Amino acid sequence: MKEINGGICAVKSVKASGACEDDYGVAVIYYPDCCATAVFTSNRVQASPIKVSREALNDGKISAVVANSGNANCMNGDEGLEDTYEMARKVSVGLEIDENLIAVASTGIIGRKLPMGVIGRLIKQAIQRLENSPKSSRNAAEAIMTTDTCPKEFAVETTLENGSKVRIGGIAKGSGMISPNMGTMLCFIATDLQASSHELATALKKAVDKTFNLVVVDGDESTNDTVILMARPGLGQMDQNFQEALEYLCGELAKMMAQDGEGATKFMEVEVKGAKALNDARRAAKAIVRSPLVKTALFGADPNWGRIVAAVGYSGADMDETKISVSLEAEGRQVHIVKHGQIKAFLGTEELELAESIMERKKIKITVNLDLGEFQATSYGCDLSYDYVQINSEYST
Amino acid sequence: MKEINGGICAVKSVKASGACEDDYGVAVIYYPDCCATAVFTSNRVQASPIKVSREALNDGKISAVVANSGNANCMNGDEGLEDTYEMARKVSVGLEIDENLIAVASTGIIGRKLPMGVIGRLIKQAIQRLENSPKSSRNAAEAIMTTDTCPKEFAVETTLENGSKVRIGGIAKGSGMISPNMGTMLCFIATDLQASSHELATALKKAVDKTFNLVVVDGDESTNDTVILMARPGLGQMDQNFQEALEYLCGELAKMMAQDGEGATKFMEVEVKGAKALNDARRAAKAIVRSPLVKTALFGADPNWGRIVAAVGYSGADMDETKISVSLEAEGRQVHIVKHGQIKAFLGTEELELAESIMERKKIKITVNLDLGEFQATSYGCDLSYDYVQINSEYST
Repeated sequence: MKEINGGICAVKSVKASGACEDDYGVAVIYYPDCCATAVFTSNRVQASPIKVSREALNDGKISAVVANSGNANCMNGDEGLEDTYEMARKVSVGLEIDENLIAVASTGIIGRKLPMGVIGRLIKQAIQRLENSPKSSRNAAEAIMTTDTCPKEFAVETTLENGSKVRIGGIAKGSGMISPNMGTMLCFIATDLQASSHELATALKKAVDKTFNLVVVDGDESTNDTVILMARPGLGQMDQNFQEALEYLCGELAKMMAQDGEGATKFMEVEVKGAKALNDARRAAKAIVRSPLVKTALFGADPNWGRIVAAVGYSGADMDETKISVSLEAEGRQVHIVKHGQIKAFLGTEELELAESIMERKKIKITVNLDLGEFQATSYGCDLSYDYVQINSEYST
Repeated sequence: MKEINGGICAVKSVKASGACEDDYGVAVIYYPDCCATAVFTSNRVQASPIKVSREALNDGKISAVVANSGNANCMNGDEGLEDTYEMARKVSVGLEIDENLIAVASTGIIGRKLPMGVIGRLIKQAIQRLENSPKSSRNAAEAIMTTDTCPKEFAVETTLENGSKVRIGGIAKGSGMISPNMGTMLCFIATDLQASSHELATALKKAVDKTFNLVVVDGDESTNDTVILMARPGLGQMDQNFQEALEYLCGELAKMMAQDGEGATKFMEVEVKGAKALNDARRAAKAIVRSPLVKTALFGADPNWGRIVAAVGYSGADMDETKISVSLEAEGRQVHIVKHGQIKAFLGTEELELAESIMERKKIKITVNLDLGEFQATSYGCDLSYDYVQINSEYST
């Protein structure tokens, strides 16, 4: 497997584009007659586009995705639903494809009517600009940004067990309202692998559980989260190499979201190992990256292992405080601050000094070994800074 | 029932005191041969004092409580446990009572050795100062403060169904690491009601579930939380009037904690009604006060009902977005911002204007009606401000 350029357009059958005006953006992704699957938010409040995309994806086949930023089109009742269908219709007319073959996604403010005038213009522009190029993938990624500070795209090429090469490319957005069960994030992934929608669904679910569902910015779960995976219809190509490449791509996009967390100044990767069960590892890893006390300690460069251990303690994961070990790592330097329940980073120790200097870095890895079993999980998060408070106290209804 | 003065010393058989030195404080509460019960943190990491208090309370009888601030005595291994026993022994010697009759509580930094020199001195001083007076209750409440900005005490007198009057008084501390299942909070409550420890346990559990377990400052659950209820040994007095008075007292202390949340500039009371089940009401109420996005919106005085509805949506509570209503209330003014799923507070509406002016107030009540059943719960919380970030990024390991 190798990283390649081009984002979602690294896959040759895909065309993408983006168009923006004021606070709004529209991205269109065109992959004619592809086989597709999706994972949506588990929030009980679901935006209109989620309902429409569920219908479109029902038989595992679509031809295009249209996504807008600036307005979530959520809690807008029948009118909101009608606007979503209208978005699909506009794409259907522009691309001359069946309107049931179009998935729709929206991100932005909840409960404000979609400005169909500007959205209609942007859809038209985006369709005119569709092409297969690195630039058009980048434009699409930019068009779906909200509080994101940078566009997010990634692509890989891998060799299947049968020797053929396949590519996977994706674009994503997400920086706030990110939580264990997919905060406001959109992610569109395409591959030239041949697969059935059933195979895709299994592969995507597995990848999402390992990656996007372990990213936390603030723990709030959005009403609009959508990950769509599109592939060539067919059978017989899905294998472990593809799965690994897909998980790698999703992991990289997930890390980009955590790094671009609202107001984030620092990134943390938390690996919990030695867990008795996979769920224990995931719970503990999520509790740490979600903890406001761990997040503020990260912001303050404080190697506050007490908050880390306490978060594991309330996570629901099986743990034994006399067995737990915690280490910090950055730029190739590592220090054990707790070893088998014994504190190593006391005041005046070299360990504390090293731990403090590691916490000053921008990217920090926290490893927790529960020493109770063989299971492992990695979560991604960021610090809680003054800027998070500013962004979210000023972002208006 | 009426509110009275005197805190925990409103109960005549109780003596209290507090002593402080630098970052440390010790409170002693002396209620000879009382009947007692406790609720402790559900964090799997439990501080030494929790272990020792569990033993002391095992047969439902104690004579004193000693609590220190400045050091949580958690994750300190055998040495920490030995220090806790030593605290109990010092009180046992000073008060000439059995050392198995002493409950111990600690709050402060995790994983640093208890400075037994200063703690010993403070215990001695506190025992010398023991008395039954409003001032001594206040001193005890002050001695257990950490990042609290004010001491917390409350007392009520109620008339039982049989006509006799009883009093309940309590002191508490807690301002950060407060979460649904009791963040770092200590609360000691005394009453002159006659009751068995079994009756007390049932009454306390019920009161804690309705009050302290619904306070959220940051959602982090501490390793040291303790609520102790002490009464006169006996039988036959426990009744619904007492239960109501106990819940009222716990509710008032819980509100004080939320109001004194770290960095808090605003207080919110969230009532969720019309729930299909009690658990749904509690989950939804807790999700709202816990949500960083709702908390920052409160800080920014933004009537962001979308974040409120989204929090209900991911809380796990049964809900229907076409039935939900949300209103805001402060200083006697109320406004419906969502009614049966319809947005009322649009840009340009009087509702939005009124909602914005309500959000400028210091104490705001948010009412959510799920319109699905008869169950209700109220939670308490505060905003997420720059100061929360400052306090917790600078509070050191």
